[in-house]
Amino acid sequence: MFQKRTSIAQVEESDNLAPKFDENGLIVVTTIDSQTKEILMIGYMNEESLTKSIETKEAHYYSRSRKAIWHKGAKSGYVQKIKEILIDDDQDSLCMMVDIGENGASCHVGYKSCFYREIDLEGTKNKPGLRFKTTKKVFDPNIVYGDEPNPTKL
Amino acid sequence: MFQKRTSIAQVEESDNLAPKFDENGLIVVTTIDSQTKEILMIGYMNEESLTKSIETKEAHYYSRSRKAIWHKGAKSGYVQKIKEILIDDDQDSLCMMVDIGENGASCHVGYKSCFYREIDLEGTKNKPGLRFKTTKKVFDPNIVYGDEPNPTKL
Repeated sequence: MFQKRTSIAQVEESDNLAPKFDENGLIVVTTIDSQTKEILMIGYMNEESLTKSIETKEAHYYSRSRKAIWHKGAKSGYVQKIKEILIDDDQDSLCMMVDIGENGASCHVGYKSCFYREIDLEGTKNKPGLRFKTTKKVFDPNIVYGDEPNPTKL
Repeated sequence: MFQKRTSIAQVEESDNLAPKFDENGLIVVTTIDSQTKEILMIGYMNEESLTKSIETKEAHYYSRSRKAIWHKGAKSGYVQKIKEILIDDDQDSLCMMVDIGENGASCHVGYKSCFYREIDLEGTKNKPGLRFKTTKKVFDPNIVYGDEPNPTKL
């Protein structure tokens, strides 16, 4: 589905889709709520999941913890409908604008967005902490995921 | 400056800043214009550049092509003033809200945003192309960067 990368001009200034997958075969993707412009998550795709995302217009990622294609929402019901996929200058990262509906969620912890905390930039300089931007969960992960292993790795 | 990662609860639900750097010592960061909410770029930081970013409130990345700390704007003048740094659930990615001013730019090709093209989702299914979202450059990279090597790698 993708073009070979032949020159810097082709990659940066042409209409050829010639993505660069890294040494693990992955490309990073930032996912943004197309309605609110809020960042929802950062994930990864391999060639197969990017192809599936383009073909189905539903977000498919590559799960690095499970080492498998991951159709977002297949388990939780929180499917991401793709509105746009942007690509950057050197074509090694993507930005996906998605529709998750008014009560949608993208975070396995239960929040709407994975980015529910910010670094306290005004805090103690040598050991800054985090501040919650919201404490409102959209769903209860224990009910949705049950005994499934948590994808977070230490 | 950072905490040790000791448990999933600590990483996901506490106020401890305990970022996970990957096998190359890097963490991915999506940078968004704090005024317009437009995505500007996706870059990487190592421990030192994240520390410098927090301390100075100016974006410092790690350049994978130059293998060096990269104070964004040091050459072009297009410094990114940090307003917020968000972190995700498992603390392995960041989202930075920055102020670049009305005529700022973040893309070495000369555009305001690195994401000036989108995948044509309605195009030929088996070989989709790209569509330019803008063709308006903010600066001329030949004037700003001169003979410096282009960071894009094939």
